[in-house]
Amino acid sequence: MLDQKAHKPHERLAAHLRDDLNAVDAMIRTRMASAHAPRIPEVTAHLVEAGGKRLRPMLTLAAARMCGYEGDKHVILATAIEFIHTATLLHDDVVDESAQRRGRPTANLLWDNKSSVLVGDYLLARAFQLMTDTESLRILAVLSNASATITEGEVLQLTAAQDIGTTEEIYFKVVRGKTAALFSAATEAAGILAGVSEEQVEALYDYGDALGIAFQVVDDLLDFWGGEATGKNVGDDFRDRKMTLPIIKAIAAADAEERAFWKRTMEKADQRDGDLERALEIMDRHGALEETRQAALGWADKAKAALTSLPEDPIRDMLHDIADYVVERIS
Amino acid sequence: MLDQKAHKPHERLAAHLRDDLNAVDAMIRTRMASAHAPRIPEVTAHLVEAGGKRLRPMLTLAAARMCGYEGDKHVILATAIEFIHTATLLHDDVVDESAQRRGRPTANLLWDNKSSVLVGDYLLARAFQLMTDTESLRILAVLSNASATITEGEVLQLTAAQDIGTTEEIYFKVVRGKTAALFSAATEAAGILAGVSEEQVEALYDYGDALGIAFQVVDDLLDFWGGEATGKNVGDDFRDRKMTLPIIKAIAAADAEERAFWKRTMEKADQRDGDLERALEIMDRHGALEETRQAALGWADKAKAALTSLPEDPIRDMLHDIADYVVERIS
Repeated sequence: MLDQKAHKPHERLAAHLRDDLNAVDAMIRTRMASAHAPRIPEVTAHLVEAGGKRLRPMLTLAAARMCGYEGDKHVILATAIEFIHTATLLHDDVVDESAQRRGRPTANLLWDNKSSVLVGDYLLARAFQLMTDTESLRILAVLSNASATITEGEVLQLTAAQDIGTTEEIYFKVVRGKTAALFSAATEAAGILAGVSEEQVEALYDYGDALGIAFQVVDDLLDFWGGEATGKNVGDDFRDRKMTLPIIKAIAAADAEERAFWKRTMEKADQRDGDLERALEIMDRHGALEETRQAALGWADKAKAALTSLPEDPIRDMLHDIADYVVERIS
Repeated sequence: MLDQKAHKPHERLAAHLRDDLNAVDAMIRTRMASAHAPRIPEVTAHLVEAGGKRLRPMLTLAAARMCGYEGDKHVILATAIEFIHTATLLHDDVVDESAQRRGRPTANLLWDNKSSVLVGDYLLARAFQLMTDTESLRILAVLSNASATITEGEVLQLTAAQDIGTTEEIYFKVVRGKTAALFSAATEAAGILAGVSEEQVEALYDYGDALGIAFQVVDDLLDFWGGEATGKNVGDDFRDRKMTLPIIKAIAAADAEERAFWKRTMEKADQRDGDLERALEIMDRHGALEETRQAALGWADKAKAALTSLPEDPIRDMLHDIADYVVERIS
């Protein structure tokens, strides 16, 4: 039943899938618990219970239902997807906090590191137990491949960080790893569960992949374009020296003087007053922000195009609207 | 073919399984590689290539061959087991180093932390890919259950550390997690692969479980009993305030004054000159070291007893000798 008060497309989809999402929440609580180590739910509670948008499990539930699936294993699969996502967040904490607070970690930070590593591992193990419960070797292959892609993307991001030689090809590998791989696995695995045709399984992969990439490119663009109502501080990625698409495009078009500027600010970490403004001015001059915007819109279009070969269903329309919504703030 | 120069039982077993172990080494190198993130093999090389005894994969190969398995999936399974083990070591680095170098980590330590977390995750993902390649849902269930037990054991160890209320029950849960779970999964999964009877699958689990527990109890005992030729510094666990079996047994028998001593040294971390000697004296007075020794011998006996229902084979004799070898230094 549609919730008429819900205007954003992911909220409409959540309302449509209310019962399935409640079943996922219940399974998350059950499978997170550990008789042996009661501390585990304490650590995960703030991440898993607080909820967030549950976008990834929702994609799984939506794809399964759209494809006519009538069993209950989509709930198991969606829970596994959310556990992999949560484990990734926990391990990212360790990787990111270490860098940001370099040289002065607190005992609390260290305890968090331990908990983050071990509880992340626990959730990964639980995710694989759940995947085994789907009794589909093909789904297990899709999700273990996605897990490998995720970690490869994160290692690549670590090695590419602050390297002005980073190419668009590397950027998209990183983006597939950190964002798109789990989106595409969430939709593809649901199609396999529902037993749709190979063509439709591929379309489901393409939708998740393109949606995830659009999502991340928008995020990277808004870091320079934000301001009003985006909830982001302009320039955070510049200060963290992250090689995102707008900067990569600007560097590709840079003259010798600009190259020296990027080398100083991104590689040598020598950033001064006015550098962010100069970076924005250089990116604007080369059309790097506009090109990035076009790229994001292109990925959203690809996501929508992938839907055409999937079954007609109210859910399909909502997935279409979600692709529009992802790029709404830059449209 | 037996290598007559190899006298230790695990060396004789390695010689007997030479071809299989070489196949595992080759598969480790192939599956560790990442086209996307070339840094990954750099990080794992010193752990995986340097080798170590390969005890866990060897148990898998041995159990499969002893049970008459003639395919080649035992190599896949053994590689998966070694990857899970290596991932655990990498993540333990983060958990342990944080504690030991509290307050003064180096940039290098932080980079290692990041690599350890992410590359550990990568190896886990690769392990699950390999497990999927065995095409056995039951093996996947055994190994994902083992992964959960391992992480639960590690979280429990973290929460039980420095708590003099730690019971033997908690100690054995921790030991099953940190050591025995992967041993027992290594042997049990091999039996499933070979298609032996339920009774024999259970016996294989029991052998791995008891061998792993004996292994860890001996290690914990030698920390107080070591000295000549054990390669361990006496008292490291006492200084790190680890609640191992000898201390748990001594605390269970402690009078009020001794309890105060354990509270001061283990919980409050107030350790003075002569405390280690006093700890040894108290443990000796209550027979805690001798009781721990008897416990280890008992687990080695259980491991050997489990072998009786398994097929007669030269490998079975070597597994018997390995159980004896594990407790040789305390016999």
